[in-house]
Amino acid sequence: SIKLRKFIIFPYDPRYRIWETFLLVLVVYSAWIYPFELAFLRHLSWELFLVEIIVDSFFAIDIILTFFIAYLDQKSYLLVDNPKRIAARYISSWFIFDVCSTIPYQPFGLLFKKHSDGLAYRMLNMLRLWRLRRLSALFARLEKDIRLDYYWIRCIKLFSVTLFAVHCSGCFNYLIADRYPNPAKTWIGAAIPNYRSESLWVRYVTSIYWSITTLTTTGYGDLHAENPREMLFSTCYMLFNLGLTAYIIGNMTNLVVQGSCRTRNFRDTIHAASQFAARNQLPKHIRDEILAHICLRYKTEGLKQKETLDSLPKGIRSSIAYHLFFPIIEKVYLFRGVSFTCMLQLVTAMEAEYFPPRELIILQNEAPTDVYILVSGAAEERIEIDGVEKVQGVLSTGEIFGELGALCNVPQPFTVCTTKVSQLLRKTGRDPILSTELTGKSLGTQ
Amino acid sequence: SIKLRKFIIFPYDPRYRIWETFLLVLVVYSAWIYPFELAFLRHLSWELFLVEIIVDSFFAIDIILTFFIAYLDQKSYLLVDNPKRIAARYISSWFIFDVCSTIPYQPFGLLFKKHSDGLAYRMLNMLRLWRLRRLSALFARLEKDIRLDYYWIRCIKLFSVTLFAVHCSGCFNYLIADRYPNPAKTWIGAAIPNYRSESLWVRYVTSIYWSITTLTTTGYGDLHAENPREMLFSTCYMLFNLGLTAYIIGNMTNLVVQGSCRTRNFRDTIHAASQFAARNQLPKHIRDEILAHICLRYKTEGLKQKETLDSLPKGIRSSIAYHLFFPIIEKVYLFRGVSFTCMLQLVTAMEAEYFPPRELIILQNEAPTDVYILVSGAAEERIEIDGVEKVQGVLSTGEIFGELGALCNVPQPFTVCTTKVSQLLRKTGRDPILSTELTGKSLGTQ
Amino acid sequence: SIKLRKFIIFPYDPRYRIWETFLLVLVVYSAWIYPFELAFLRHLSWELFLVEIIVDSFFAIDIILTFFIAYLDQKSYLLVDNPKRIAARYISSWFIFDVCSTIPYQPFGLLFKKHSDGLAYRMLNMLRLWRLRRLSALFARLEKDIRLDYYWIRCIKLFSVTLFAVHCSGCFNYLIADRYPNPAKTWIGAAIPNYRSESLWVRYVTSIYWSITTLTTTGYGDLHAENPREMLFSTCYMLFNLGLTAYIIGNMTNLVVQGSCRTRNFRDTIHAASQFAARNQLPKHIRDEILAHICLRYKTEGLKQKETLDSLPKGIRSSIAYHLFFPIIEKVYLFRGVSFTCMLQLVTAMEAEYFPPRELIILQNEAPTDVYILVSGAAEERIEIDGVEKVQGVLSTGEIFGELGALCNVPQPFTVCTTKVSQLLRKTGRDPILSTELTGKSLGTQ
Amino acid sequence: SIKLRKFIIFPYDPRYRIWETFLLVLVVYSAWIYPFELAFLRHLSWELFLVEIIVDSFFAIDIILTFFIAYLDQKSYLLVDNPKRIAARYISSWFIFDVCSTIPYQPFGLLFKKHSDGLAYRMLNMLRLWRLRRLSALFARLEKDIRLDYYWIRCIKLFSVTLFAVHCSGCFNYLIADRYPNPAKTWIGAAIPNYRSESLWVRYVTSIYWSITTLTTTGYGDLHAENPREMLFSTCYMLFNLGLTAYIIGNMTNLVVQGSCRTRNFRDTIHAASQFAARNQLPKHIRDEILAHICLRYKTEGLKQKETLDSLPKGIRSSIAYHLFFPIIEKVYLFRGVSFTCMLQLVTAMEAEYFPPRELIILQNEAPTDVYILVSGAAEERIEIDGVEKVQGVLSTGEIFGELGALCNVPQPFTVCTTKVSQLLRKTGRDPILSTELTGKSLGTQ
Repeated sequence: SIKLRKFIIFPYDPRYRIWETFLLVLVVYSAWIYPFELAFLRHLSWELFLVEIIVDSFFAIDIILTFFIAYLDQKSYLLVDNPKRIAARYISSWFIFDVCSTIPYQPFGLLFKKHSDGLAYRMLNMLRLWRLRRLSALFARLEKDIRLDYYWIRCIKLFSVTLFAVHCSGCFNYLIADRYPNPAKTWIGAAIPNYRSESLWVRYVTSIYWSITTLTTTGYGDLHAENPREMLFSTCYMLFNLGLTAYIIGNMTNLVVQGSCRTRNFRDTIHAASQFAARNQLPKHIRDEILAHICLRYKTEGLKQKETLDSLPKGIRSSIAYHLFFPIIEKVYLFRGVSFTCMLQLVTAMEAEYFPPRELIILQNEAPTDVYILVSGAAEERIEIDGVEKVQGVLSTGEIFGELGALCNVPQPFTVCTTKVSQLLRKTGRDPILSTELTGKSLGTQ
Repeated sequence: SIKLRKFIIFPYDPRYRIWETFLLVLVVYSAWIYPFELAFLRHLSWELFLVEIIVDSFFAIDIILTFFIAYLDQKSYLLVDNPKRIAARYISSWFIFDVCSTIPYQPFGLLFKKHSDGLAYRMLNMLRLWRLRRLSALFARLEKDIRLDYYWIRCIKLFSVTLFAVHCSGCFNYLIADRYPNPAKTWIGAAIPNYRSESLWVRYVTSIYWSITTLTTTGYGDLHAENPREMLFSTCYMLFNLGLTAYIIGNMTNLVVQGSCRTRNFRDTIHAASQFAARNQLPKHIRDEILAHICLRYKTEGLKQKETLDSLPKGIRSSIAYHLFFPIIEKVYLFRGVSFTCMLQLVTAMEAEYFPPRELIILQNEAPTDVYILVSGAAEERIEIDGVEKVQGVLSTGEIFGELGALCNVPQPFTVCTTKVSQLLRKTGRDPILSTELTGKSLGTQ
Repeated sequence: SIKLRKFIIFPYDPRYRIWETFLLVLVVYSAWIYPFELAFLRHLSWELFLVEIIVDSFFAIDIILTFFIAYLDQKSYLLVDNPKRIAARYISSWFIFDVCSTIPYQPFGLLFKKHSDGLAYRMLNMLRLWRLRRLSALFARLEKDIRLDYYWIRCIKLFSVTLFAVHCSGCFNYLIADRYPNPAKTWIGAAIPNYRSESLWVRYVTSIYWSITTLTTTGYGDLHAENPREMLFSTCYMLFNLGLTAYIIGNMTNLVVQGSCRTRNFRDTIHAASQFAARNQLPKHIRDEILAHICLRYKTEGLKQKETLDSLPKGIRSSIAYHLFFPIIEKVYLFRGVSFTCMLQLVTAMEAEYFPPRELIILQNEAPTDVYILVSGAAEERIEIDGVEKVQGVLSTGEIFGELGALCNVPQPFTVCTTKVSQLLRKTGRDPILSTELTGKSLGTQ
Repeated sequence: SIKLRKFIIFPYDPRYRIWETFLLVLVVYSAWIYPFELAFLRHLSWELFLVEIIVDSFFAIDIILTFFIAYLDQKSYLLVDNPKRIAARYISSWFIFDVCSTIPYQPFGLLFKKHSDGLAYRMLNMLRLWRLRRLSALFARLEKDIRLDYYWIRCIKLFSVTLFAVHCSGCFNYLIADRYPNPAKTWIGAAIPNYRSESLWVRYVTSIYWSITTLTTTGYGDLHAENPREMLFSTCYMLFNLGLTAYIIGNMTNLVVQGSCRTRNFRDTIHAASQFAARNQLPKHIRDEILAHICLRYKTEGLKQKETLDSLPKGIRSSIAYHLFFPIIEKVYLFRGVSFTCMLQLVTAMEAEYFPPRELIILQNEAPTDVYILVSGAAEERIEIDGVEKVQGVLSTGEIFGELGALCNVPQPFTVCTTKVSQLLRKTGRDPILSTELTGKSLGTQ
């Protein structure tokens, strides 16, 4: 329904979303290939070279595309589709980083410098890891997406960060060993004397194994730094690991505390109720009733809707009330002939509440207070005469009760008890508008 | 008291509970034996083979039994005993997994393939670990059981998970070493050259020792991966350990935070009170009284029953009030002759409160507000004349006080102070119904 | 002041406290010596033997003494000095453990069995570690003692537990190695071939070093299990360490979260205020006033006494109010001639509040609400005429202000502003009793 | 603006701040050089000796300077510039420590003892680390500075502490090895036989590498304690590390819990709203409106200013209200001719609230309650006739609405809905002063 200028793309356009998802796959590929290439592939094969150029060109296209994507202004919360403002915003933020992480440095290296190695140019390739900010943005978005479980999103994020740290440090550590003048005085050379003749697979697995052994602080010691250069790198990596491990534990603690919150509350409530029953030597049937009530409340916790409704603004709240309750109130015998305006005010003023089954809503002989309308579920009227309780009538959807007491100010003539999970509308009987209208009506009907 | 269809079993039937507990023992046995068998027992003895078939048949019986167990519907919270609905629910949920984890794969292996090893069939045995979901369900239930201490249930759960992880990974690591072509290039072969001739006990303990050394990240290094296959397994295991350790620490933190919550609150309260007393230079006897009060309140925290009562629905609350307080109120001299309906309303409206000993409830010359009835404990009336305080009378269970002030609107003529831990019913004197009845009565008695 | 039966000792008696403290020193000694003796001292010297017997006899005396110590009943919170009840309680709780941990097993060993070793009898000595429950009780008490810092008590407790675990496991591990048939296949024998000829100091330090290396999961690997027996012990110890480490981290997290709570709140408040000022472009002087107020409130947080007072029962609250405020109120000109009873009610009903310096209490032309009495500190009256503000008068302790507005219902004629940290009593002017009395008085004085 | 005595310096003087910052640089230098010098530099070069004397003299100057710095009294919160009180405070607190950490011990050592080593004098140099308290004070101040991110300040602090611990223990461990009689039986001698001939760089890196390997509990085992002296040092260091690691993890957990708090609340709110919509089968447009509202509220959370305002004292609050709203209220047609005093009270009593765009403020036919004045943003009046809604008028800054309903007590004639983020002043119409004035005015104008 939102109309944008020509050539400007809506940021939530499904096709653009597909393009973004496709780029994320390339980002994951980049995160893996560039450190690996730097460490293990002295001579890049033509196939891999071609793949890289294709990947880079996709990101180049994305840079151009970004100039045509509308964005949501952070101050006014309105969509901006002015190409100049889009361009100004992009250039002043991440444009320069995006460009730097897309320039194909290696072909330049091949062009200008003829010697086989070109470590400097290959190091520049590491700038491509800037692309990882897309993954970081993705996780920030997924964390707020309630269709996904927060716990698992956080776990996957932490796992990805850990894997990337392991991969990178494994590759860099191999690079340091590989470039060291004396192969015997390197961490890998000391363990596998002629390691360069081993397959790529063995060398990569060994690197990753060293990396994870260090990250988890297991430190078997079968592979360890042998020269000052490696010691320095290990030192930095271990300092980083200390932070990463603390971060992982901190996150896990956070998730565990949140996860156990509900069980804890349940236990505390049950515990307090049991102690209360024991101290007062309540008879068994009352004790069971209390515990059953708490268990049910815990299970139907999702039914608590009062908090949700209260936090919404008045406008939305009254559309909800109108949508949900007007058709029911309209048909209540008491309100026939009441003016539309008054009915509207009534609907907005009533409070909807859920009751579990077997809960007493009003008690016989109780002082009169509120009027109730049954929206869903079922209830029954019970009357106790000479100590014998019998069911007087069954209430179904749309019926009103408690009105006798509330309007005529006499004690409730019977007990009302739910028989299913029921939704009720509650209204205090002292409402001036209602009283006036009803009094008027009753006078009229008399 | 719940009547179910013929042949349908009540899920909380004690005999079914015993059957379930018996199965849990078999689950623990399965969790231990299958990984062990896979790694260490190349040739299964006939005794063990028989035991396995018996264990499997018990689980097969349980699958059939499940078709006859009523279940609690998650929406209506009613027990379903319709065999078709029971079957539909089971088949659409876990039936297929249960069957797969019960089929005896190894006899099939012996039937079809004649060669001694049959690793594929033995790997299928690992599907039996699906049975562990029963343990997981058990712990979920135990955590909500308030007769057990939450702290220890969580600790035992974490300990079990850790033990299982240690056992499994120890077995798998041995399996990898055992199947490796070059025994000298394995983690165990490098440490114990002719390890296959060692006893089963030595090999198992060595495996477990490696496993726990890695899990706790101690990593002595006396046993460590020697070939890429083992390195890969170690890498995966260490990554898993990172998560498990973080999870254990997270849980422990959660438990510690909860456990120290009460002590912390106590300290904060005492600290604030001491500071307050010091700042205002309160005399020592008032200071001691304050601290004694806080200590006692902390000790009698279990007596706080207001919160428990308030969270219960009105129906339950009034049965409790009726049960606890009606016999006492009936006998109060002030309420003799008051109508039953009025008494009922009175009982429901009164608030029960606990007072520690030596607490002043009403003060001489204080403005009149509430009426109190002593339910349990004891109190004394004190009167101060010309600065000398003397005990006027002793109040025992069922006595009313404060009524003179509240009903006649004069300052309290004496101080009332508890002498034991006492439970009191409080009623504000301005209740219209009570006032009307009492006025009527007093007029009548005049 | 508490009178107990003859020969019964008051549990908080200073001399008994000294005895308890003396026993704690012996407990610490026991905790260190018994594991050490078991592992390192094959032949006990006569000096040490004598010391042990003396220590044991002190604990034997304490067992006898416990029968004469009154105790606090957990239900009635009263001190019990009935010797029979004291004995019954002790015998039914810890008596048997205390006796078992005091019997001198080793002399028995020397009596009955003549061979030099008697490991069984020496193991029984480990029962003496039951005495550690005294330390545990001490820490539970210290944690609630507000004169000590909670943070450090917890840290010392965790440190003690860690040290004890390190000491014990070091000793036990040495014991296992020492008793192993083949000294070369032990953890210490593999590292120091002729370790038995080394001094006791070297052997003990090496054991402790292994123990701490394992506990902190450093695991250098220079000392490690060599035979299945040691592997089993290491496995158990590492499992225990996992729990202990998690417990230490959990406790530390708990302490850090508590400790940073106040700084966090301060930051949040300041941040919200700054944002508010920036958004509304408030002039600099208002902005500075806001921030100064928040900083001051943060520093004087200890002055918040309302919460402390509110949580106390009415009796204590009114003695405090009487003690603190009666002498001041008595002298206020407005209340001269008011009856004592009325004054008493007034004192109890007034709320004491602290105000930081430079805070406006009432504003010129503001609607009248409350009466204030200055208890401590100082304030000044300012009047603004034609936009020029000038100081009208200085208020000192015991002066009343705001009474003109509150009683005569006219807008406040001047602004009142504190000049120091001031304590004020606030009273709403609509109090019926006060109004009546004052009106009566003013009518009388007219 | 604050006037101090002659020669007394204001503690927040920018020049003094620069001096303090300069000293901090010297503190960092001291923290690095003294442990390094102790361990690695047997013979101090003349250049370094000179630098040290210069550094010490700067700190000596600071000691003298401190006698001239005014300080903030912790009780009265006033600046003290009395030289005697400044001196008394400094001498009774840190003066002696500051002097001890500034005396040049090494020259004394050279003077009195002629032998080359003088370890005792060099150990005294460690007293200079007392200067680190300045860094600790700096971090305490930075943590409260809201211009900086709390998360990063804490991280940098923890990182600095870790680095310092690594550096110190690396140096001390080298010192122990260096002084050990048998170089082959030291941790470094066992790994690098002729380590003393290695360059300073190699020895320092190796020490740091050992230190970090131990601190992070990686413990490769390539470098480890070889003699009891080193074992003792390692034991102490590992115990310290256990505490430090727990402290780092505790802090990180604290930061993570705080950081994720907002996202968690957002998720919970959205989740509850979605469930509510699904359960009640609300039509899609209402559901979208609810979710859009919650998202917007989350984004504009910074706009919540009610809490900020409520926590401020009345004086500041009314200056803010006067500054922000008086110019707007003055121009409202309804309040023309109202007395200045009344207007002032009105401004203070009104509540400012932010509304996101598209929110309904008053509803057509709703019962009348409040009067609103639009301070910023925009709103529109909508009227629904025969089910067709049309925009009646557009409200701009300074306009009042709802006054018809509130003052004349008739249902609202139209709906008012915001079109931008708007700030509104709300006033309940039942204010007695306002009503009186307005009635008077309207009577007058009639």
